[in-house]
Amino acid sequence: MKAKSNPNILVYYHKEKYVDWYKELLERARKDLTILACKEKNQIEKNIEKADILFSGHRFPMELLPRAKNLKWIQSMSAGVENFIRSKLIPSNVILTKPKGIFGSLMAEYVIGYILAILKNMKKTFENQANKLWEPLEVDGLQHKTVGIMGLGSVGAHIAYRLHLLGLEVIGLDEQERNLPYLAKEYPVEGMDNFLGKSDFVVLTVPLTESTEGIIGEKQFMSMKESAHLINISRGPLVQEKALIKSLQKGMIAGAVLDVFNEEPLPKDHPLWNFKNVIITPHISGPSLPEDLAKIFLENLKRWEEGKKLEGMVDIHKGY
Amino acid sequence: MKAKSNPNILVYYHKEKYVDWYKELLERARKDLTILACKEKNQIEKNIEKADILFSGHRFPMELLPRAKNLKWIQSMSAGVENFIRSKLIPSNVILTKPKGIFGSLMAEYVIGYILAILKNMKKTFENQANKLWEPLEVDGLQHKTVGIMGLGSVGAHIAYRLHLLGLEVIGLDEQERNLPYLAKEYPVEGMDNFLGKSDFVVLTVPLTESTEGIIGEKQFMSMKESAHLINISRGPLVQEKALIKSLQKGMIAGAVLDVFNEEPLPKDHPLWNFKNVIITPHISGPSLPEDLAKIFLENLKRWEEGKKLEGMVDIHKGY
Repeated sequence: MKAKSNPNILVYYHKEKYVDWYKELLERARKDLTILACKEKNQIEKNIEKADILFSGHRFPMELLPRAKNLKWIQSMSAGVENFIRSKLIPSNVILTKPKGIFGSLMAEYVIGYILAILKNMKKTFENQANKLWEPLEVDGLQHKTVGIMGLGSVGAHIAYRLHLLGLEVIGLDEQERNLPYLAKEYPVEGMDNFLGKSDFVVLTVPLTESTEGIIGEKQFMSMKESAHLINISRGPLVQEKALIKSLQKGMIAGAVLDVFNEEPLPKDHPLWNFKNVIITPHISGPSLPEDLAKIFLENLKRWEEGKKLEGMVDIHKGY
Repeated sequence: MKAKSNPNILVYYHKEKYVDWYKELLERARKDLTILACKEKNQIEKNIEKADILFSGHRFPMELLPRAKNLKWIQSMSAGVENFIRSKLIPSNVILTKPKGIFGSLMAEYVIGYILAILKNMKKTFENQANKLWEPLEVDGLQHKTVGIMGLGSVGAHIAYRLHLLGLEVIGLDEQERNLPYLAKEYPVEGMDNFLGKSDFVVLTVPLTESTEGIIGEKQFMSMKESAHLINISRGPLVQEKALIKSLQKGMIAGAVLDVFNEEPLPKDHPLWNFKNVIITPHISGPSLPEDLAKIFLENLKRWEEGKKLEGMVDIHKGY
């Protein structure tokens, strides 16, 4: 593949100040680039036909994709590419890539931090402090705890490795065998009941696809320990929300840490806000630093210009 | 040293139910032991003269020590032995030992957990959740953060190692050179200003002695970064409380995590309760699990019976 020289690069993100920041980062690194920085849909409409490359977050107005007559490559800013895939509007000759490797470290910190927040009873500790109450609470340790990582892609594998270093037993589940040396055991998808039954914390790091949507439902909550916590840092629709709420109400699991939801922001009247044993964070587990993402894009752009294979290629049929 | 066979072991802890639990643990392990389980001072008074060995927490009524005519060995349940030392009432032929090695792991979890609680802005996150407020806060990561461990005994060394595994830069300060391979740099006591100036988190793991009391005062807060946090998991009097409060008020440091205080429980009217950027926990960073402590005592008891050197010997002149 011989890439067109001086391609038009359309940059979009749903927060305006980020678009300026991406433009500056790219132009600072490469003076020769033609950046079409778009903050709103009407700007995209004016520029989409000219675009050779699209560098965008997952809230891109997908309905405009069919107008991208010159488009050759989409670099997603997000590791979750389900919005692109589900639109079914990516022209068949267009390559889709997603960032790899940069989320693992921050997401591992999120998982470790909130596992410790649960074991050390931090929520109640902070409440007690607000009430000036000195009450030594029961605290627990990482020792003898098992964490189950569902989905062993680059994020899941990184989290597993970090937890292993901390002395936890880590087990994994994936549709393919990964043979990761820091896992105590790997389960195939058919072994999900056993995998869930062994885990004190179940961490979801699976991409959202047609086959993973709603993968955690009533049956899966039944398989989990009553003392277990669910941690979802991937995508809300992986979990059947009604089944989750029912499981929490019935004490079928001990609690949950949720960073992602079916609807974001989580509506004010949503019942999940009310559970004492649920920690809700506003989709911050894998913050995308523009500096990191711009670097990934520029490296891939160089490969593209040299006709090399791009990093983070998405199989559009598989969905990840 | 030929130890007396069938010694009388006086067991004391300031919480009654723990005394029963210790008695049960020891008797379950060894049917031949004579346990004098004491829950109150008057019980100690009746039994202290008979005691060959004292296995006790640091709230033992020290004024009774001179009556312990037969005492040969005190096994402290606490890693902090300053109450024993300061009483100056330990008969000169009595050995004092403290538990070693069992606190490091739990204290490392405390330090990692609360560093992440700060970086991930958990206190505010939980507040927002209570108000059903979806507000993506700025969160930070462990990368490029430096933790300074003051005191490289077994607890400090263990914490340093764990933090190193997590990818943090760890520096240490101690009065003796330890040459720990996982430290980026070791500072002597004279290098404290530089040590403090480099640390994003300063963790106190020094024993409380005459020379360390008040070791963190106004001058030391001046040396710290304005963005730094102090974490005290050792003993309250290491820190000059007035200087700490002044530093917090003036923004000379960014905050603190405090598990120990001059007065415990921390009085209701104490100003430290009121700082948003201070996390207060009720002396729980190194919970002493009776199971672990009983095991340590029994192992040392075996050594004692065999005339071997005991583990965790305290140098009463040094104070640790």
